[in-house]
Amino acid sequence: MAEPNFLGAIQSLPQFQASAEAMRKGHLRQLFHENPQRANEYSIATEVMYFDYSRQRVDKTILGLLLELAQIRGLKKSIDAMFQGAIINTTERRAVLHVALRKSGKTDCKEAQEAQRVLAKIQKFSEEVHSGKRVGVTGKPFRNILAIGIGGSYLGPECLAQACAPYARPGMRVRFLANIDGTDFVNCTKEWDPAETLVVIISKTFTTAETMQNARTVKEWLLQGLHSHPETIAKHCVAVSQNNAKAILEIQALGLLPESLFEIWDWVGGRFSVTSAVGALPLSLYLGYDQFQEILKGAEWMDQHFQNTPFAQNIPVLCGLIDIWNIHFLGCTSRALLPYAQGLARLPAYTQQGEMESNGKSVTQDREHPTPVTWPTGEIVFGEPGTNGQHSFYQLLHQGTHIIPADFIGFIEPEYPVRNSKDIVSHHEELLTNFLAQPDALAFGQDNPNLHSNFPGNRPSNVLLFRKLDPFTAGVIIAWTEHRIAVKGFIWGLNSFDQFGVELGKMLGKDIRGRMERYHKSQELNLTTLNPSTQKLLQAIMHKKLP
Amino acid sequence: MAEPNFLGAIQSLPQFQASAEAMRKGHLRQLFHENPQRANEYSIATEVMYFDYSRQRVDKTILGLLLELAQIRGLKKSIDAMFQGAIINTTERRAVLHVALRKSGKTDCKEAQEAQRVLAKIQKFSEEVHSGKRVGVTGKPFRNILAIGIGGSYLGPECLAQACAPYARPGMRVRFLANIDGTDFVNCTKEWDPAETLVVIISKTFTTAETMQNARTVKEWLLQGLHSHPETIAKHCVAVSQNNAKAILEIQALGLLPESLFEIWDWVGGRFSVTSAVGALPLSLYLGYDQFQEILKGAEWMDQHFQNTPFAQNIPVLCGLIDIWNIHFLGCTSRALLPYAQGLARLPAYTQQGEMESNGKSVTQDREHPTPVTWPTGEIVFGEPGTNGQHSFYQLLHQGTHIIPADFIGFIEPEYPVRNSKDIVSHHEELLTNFLAQPDALAFGQDNPNLHSNFPGNRPSNVLLFRKLDPFTAGVIIAWTEHRIAVKGFIWGLNSFDQFGVELGKMLGKDIRGRMERYHKSQELNLTTLNPSTQKLLQAIMHKKLP
Repeated sequence: MAEPNFLGAIQSLPQFQASAEAMRKGHLRQLFHENPQRANEYSIATEVMYFDYSRQRVDKTILGLLLELAQIRGLKKSIDAMFQGAIINTTERRAVLHVALRKSGKTDCKEAQEAQRVLAKIQKFSEEVHSGKRVGVTGKPFRNILAIGIGGSYLGPECLAQACAPYARPGMRVRFLANIDGTDFVNCTKEWDPAETLVVIISKTFTTAETMQNARTVKEWLLQGLHSHPETIAKHCVAVSQNNAKAILEIQALGLLPESLFEIWDWVGGRFSVTSAVGALPLSLYLGYDQFQEILKGAEWMDQHFQNTPFAQNIPVLCGLIDIWNIHFLGCTSRALLPYAQGLARLPAYTQQGEMESNGKSVTQDREHPTPVTWPTGEIVFGEPGTNGQHSFYQLLHQGTHIIPADFIGFIEPEYPVRNSKDIVSHHEELLTNFLAQPDALAFGQDNPNLHSNFPGNRPSNVLLFRKLDPFTAGVIIAWTEHRIAVKGFIWGLNSFDQFGVELGKMLGKDIRGRMERYHKSQELNLTTLNPSTQKLLQAIMHKKLP
Repeated sequence: MAEPNFLGAIQSLPQFQASAEAMRKGHLRQLFHENPQRANEYSIATEVMYFDYSRQRVDKTILGLLLELAQIRGLKKSIDAMFQGAIINTTERRAVLHVALRKSGKTDCKEAQEAQRVLAKIQKFSEEVHSGKRVGVTGKPFRNILAIGIGGSYLGPECLAQACAPYARPGMRVRFLANIDGTDFVNCTKEWDPAETLVVIISKTFTTAETMQNARTVKEWLLQGLHSHPETIAKHCVAVSQNNAKAILEIQALGLLPESLFEIWDWVGGRFSVTSAVGALPLSLYLGYDQFQEILKGAEWMDQHFQNTPFAQNIPVLCGLIDIWNIHFLGCTSRALLPYAQGLARLPAYTQQGEMESNGKSVTQDREHPTPVTWPTGEIVFGEPGTNGQHSFYQLLHQGTHIIPADFIGFIEPEYPVRNSKDIVSHHEELLTNFLAQPDALAFGQDNPNLHSNFPGNRPSNVLLFRKLDPFTAGVIIAWTEHRIAVKGFIWGLNSFDQFGVELGKMLGKDIRGRMERYHKSQELNLTTLNPSTQKLLQAIMHKKLP
């Protein structure tokens, strides 16, 4: 990299410190007071969404500096490199091409061609299921989709399934089995008839411990429920995985047909994979392929906006830069994601993975010579849908000692037009009164001589307004999340696309599993090399007795 | 208060700074290495739970200082005052007596007698429902419980309903309608037959906007589904509320019978109310009264532990003190709550409200002369059940630049004994391999010359081990959460029992609602006094067109 690192870039812009100091002393009330055009100047209107960042603690100088920072850090080059399929996942030597997954129309991009090929296969398969051409071993049509997967093979599909539930095909149901906790298996299967259940096993490597064990258990549930019909697994199970020798062996070992594999590729990271077969297969089965295609169109809209819009008008770029501003200069270590839509109840969990797994890093992206970062990176993301969160953690947002920037996401139209005869405002309008009120309450506060009722305000937020939560919009939101993450990683100089931080826990877990297995075989519990605290816990667990 | 405030107390213990400095440079590896007895000395074994805080970055000196801090801040006195019903909710001039809700046996405490009286009524009512003595207007027995409530009238009951689902009465189902978003209403009602549905409307004041509007909409759903049978509301709806004139009027206006009111009191705060009728009524209907009583027994066990155990062995006291240590001296602003149990999937959301609404405050508790605090208070709490979180945000926990203390909660026995014939370890054992591995990975890390795979460790956590997630244990966990919150509030000098921070947003929302209502009547949209950003948003919403 020819560019200076993040801190070097910040330091090359000495105005940053002065602006930050001034802004830390300033107040949003003042910024609005000084500039009656703030609403227009600090917002971006597009044909599919409106983005209002006027309640962020930034001014034109700061935005200018952030854009300079982006230039010094080569953001445009990084974005282009991503879209062009350069090996930007340096540590794993992979391209990062989730944007190719939703590239529509004729294309020279090999990866996009591959993606389109698999999508066509998914379309055919899901249409066969929906038309009744493809049925279970008893001849009953499939109406239950059980998607087994965890992390990136779970959070995105689950989030989108909930968001798009009003668009589901009549009679189709979907559940997501992620947790190895047997309670999740029981919850997912207890009310379902195996004869009507199609299982989608999703794992990039087809070796993920939880997913494989859940798959084996679900396989036995199917076989038991279907009287060990010899075609049970072949007819009731399909897989989403990479197409490599090891995965194929696993898929065959489980008893699936080779043609039941819906392919993904190493250029799609797990947490960026919801628009691949990972999401496409279960969601096309649940919603119908055309609805899933709407999701792709929404994501592609955002891809094009991200790739082609000047940074000063670029929504994910501005979001990412402002996040960095809040983290670096205002000392915010967390961010609240507040969708005013019950259908987006799982967007915070999805985004949590995206942000925290991508940018929860402490070393620079250089493969051979990474250096420890000396600046704060990825923030903690949390949230609940509005208005629920208002009756929960918003007290801290308004009056706590920590400043937590918030994203408010709202929709002009409801998913369902619910109203009763007594209330003049509909449910959706009542929801939106809150969506409008909260950002102002946070930003402007209210002075009160009674300190208990004093609201200092000056708490920053974004407001995103969409027409309606439908599959297209859900696709826009997903891609917005993906690109905002990438922007931050590029600016900070992280590799947002690997996740070595999950390996140590897996390794230690495997070691414990070995001890448990040996205990079952020999009744001898090997505690050597474990620290005394873990020894006590493992003994308690295996001997089924509290310490 | 005769005691010095929090900062004064900290400053009166100058050793704190030196210890903190040393601990910031030290490492958990070293602490374990130096003291082979650390597992025993930094853990508490009781008959119902085991609490291991050996992986916290504390030593005996620091624990001694924290206990001195508790003494200087009069913690024992505050706890006793709470149990004795003193007016410790100073701003609202109320006692804080959720502990009276689960006091069993004969008692002189008037509030406990009241609570027992209402519990007896709940027992009778739920037994009548279960025996078929009390049925809907068509004569069908009730099998669906629809609980309408938000915030404290929702998160606790929902969390416990999920945690105790294996103990539900066969055939009974419960859903929680919280969000004003009509999607929540549709999701809750679309598969249910009104004839079999009993509605529990929960609101302390019976004026909560979301709950009342949802109640009116559900009322019309019932009437429509039951052909406006004149006894529909009387037979299908009950209320949990305070018994005051205003609430009674609201209850009658809705058409409920006066005897359908199950009482709560102003000495129970919303977020501490799950062991009152708020939780007791829906959960007794769903689980059976005896199972709910187990929850009460578990909570009472923790109450007694909290009230009677010396602080050095007192689990919620130690948890609270260590939280303060992590926040104040190690600079941690958030905490991850990681139940290794799918049944506790909503414990983080429940705890989020408890912690962040109680201690997300910036002024001291004094009613007349509060002072702004000059120290960080309540932390951000977030989490997902293990192992799901491992495939999501744990990357940041292990390798991020922010240190996030974590609570691991595990159970020796599973809720359901799920295993397949291929895996030697059961699902639950596999879950526990992770529960054991993660705290060690965080605490000890692993040096690696390849910085991408380097784990610095030194990341603190608690480990809590219980026998089994059953109603009793769920009650223990709820009360543990409540008391840990109170400990922090007492030490910081906050009033953890009010929530004035939610008022401004409500007020602004009401203002917007007025504008919407006028618009519906007159087609004129009044934008005066709104700031330009909100004007644009409100116009977009009412004109149904993006800006």
